[in-house]
Amino acid sequence: MFISKKEIEVRYAETDQMGVVYHANYVIWLEVGRTQLISDLGFSYAGMEEEGILSPVVDLDIKYKKPMKFGETAVIHTWVEEYTGVRVKYGYEILAPSGETAATAFSTHVCVKKDTFKPIQFKKHYPEWHRAYEEAKKRD
Amino acid sequence: MFISKKEIEVRYAETDQMGVVYHANYVIWLEVGRTQLISDLGFSYAGMEEEGILSPVVDLDIKYKKPMKFGETAVIHTWVEEYTGVRVKYGYEILAPSGETAATAFSTHVCVKKDTFKPIQFKKHYPEWHRAYEEAKKRD
Amino acid sequence: MFISKKEIEVRYAETDQMGVVYHANYVIWLEVGRTQLISDLGFSYAGMEEEGILSPVVDLDIKYKKPMKFGETAVIHTWVEEYTGVRVKYGYEILAPSGETAATAFSTHVCVKKDTFKPIQFKKHYPEWHRAYEEAKKRD
Amino acid sequence: MFISKKEIEVRYAETDQMGVVYHANYVIWLEVGRTQLISDLGFSYAGMEEEGILSPVVDLDIKYKKPMKFGETAVIHTWVEEYTGVRVKYGYEILAPSGETAATAFSTHVCVKKDTFKPIQFKKHYPEWHRAYEEAKKRD
Repeated sequence: MFISKKEIEVRYAETDQMGVVYHANYVIWLEVGRTQLISDLGFSYAGMEEEGILSPVVDLDIKYKKPMKFGETAVIHTWVEEYTGVRVKYGYEILAPSGETAATAFSTHVCVKKDTFKPIQFKKHYPEWHRAYEEAKKRD
Repeated sequence: MFISKKEIEVRYAETDQMGVVYHANYVIWLEVGRTQLISDLGFSYAGMEEEGILSPVVDLDIKYKKPMKFGETAVIHTWVEEYTGVRVKYGYEILAPSGETAATAFSTHVCVKKDTFKPIQFKKHYPEWHRAYEEAKKRD
Repeated sequence: MFISKKEIEVRYAETDQMGVVYHANYVIWLEVGRTQLISDLGFSYAGMEEEGILSPVVDLDIKYKKPMKFGETAVIHTWVEEYTGVRVKYGYEILAPSGETAATAFSTHVCVKKDTFKPIQFKKHYPEWHRAYEEAKKRD
Repeated sequence: MFISKKEIEVRYAETDQMGVVYHANYVIWLEVGRTQLISDLGFSYAGMEEEGILSPVVDLDIKYKKPMKFGETAVIHTWVEEYTGVRVKYGYEILAPSGETAATAFSTHVCVKKDTFKPIQFKKHYPEWHRAYEEAKKRD
């Protein structure tokens, strides 16, 4: 399984009055990790959208393990956990500078047409992307 | 089971280039719903924090059903799904103006001391709050 | 001059580790105030966008006077400070619960076509809106 | 004058339904630029806060020139525009990938004690930082 890695420096704006990163911001970090994974596989999420395809999230599950702080840099590990040709489930691990797990997560996405929000088959519309996802599941 | 209701007008800032509410913003809305529920039960989350207690989320699960748009008002339904005296699991339903479900969610929280992030027993430290949660599970 | 008023309950998400509302969030509040003013004048910003017109900000100036906290409700006062038929400058005052000024601001906006980002004349394309803005400057 | 440079990849979360970066997010980018400048000068904003000093913004002025999009990388130029020993005014230029200016800004900050929000003299409490700011104004 191919694992993409992306560093994220905590922004002051991302903290809350608990003195740690506000939990909703991890959801944004997941997207940054996902964008990096797609880029590492040789594709562009921005480019896909320009062609009229969106990839909304339908399910999101996060487990928070250890708070992160301003001044720290997180590393987001992102991989293709499951892929059916229609749905893709990404897996994530957010690592604190100590190497400890700050959070783990899964998000499931479909692809839809921008105009109609109707689902499309990845396999059919993006055969190259389809092959890349199939391989990403197997790669070391 | 007591269900708290809170209206949220979609902010322009909450949209993304898909033309709908960005998915991480629902996580913020859940917190607004939770704050309202706590207020409806006669307590204050801000007040609890002033006493040195935090209630971080440890687990979050959201299912996205229907996108919401700028110009719409969401209604957040929030309730106590499970409560053990140590952990509380809140349930949520986000309703679009049409009455359709935009999203459903659950979040699990513990209580910790602000200084140490060590868990405390709700039942012991906040007996009144404890009773209110016990009752909120049963109330109509 | 007509002054629109809008209440905003501080969200936990809006705080930072200083323990007060993070300064960029005031910029979002200004937009909420602006949306309310437009609504009070009988128009809909969402509706304007559906017709293919955007109204981006070109200049923003904020003075921060007094920090606001979670648990408080702000009141945003918004008015038309200047209006030329092409540009509109909104004025804002953000009031804390004590009645003290938390912040004051001005933002200047143009109208552009969604497809081309080319500026349009408000006066010509939206004569009714134009009249409403002219009157809002004068109204008590 | 020393100019700090920091790259920021646009996040999907930072876009709005106009299809460009939402204007409040530039305010967050300014802070990222400021944090980088402070780091380049050999100091740590996180470290300063741990010592009980905050540096809230009192005035912010942004001019928006050119919208930025998801898929692009901005470069934030940040420098010390003015420095009095009590107040510091930072200057910013946000550059699009084309080299064009996306936005320019200034923000003015004071230093206050975390507990009391009372202003302190930078010169007196942080003589080394003071010297670094004095030099940053002059450096090439």
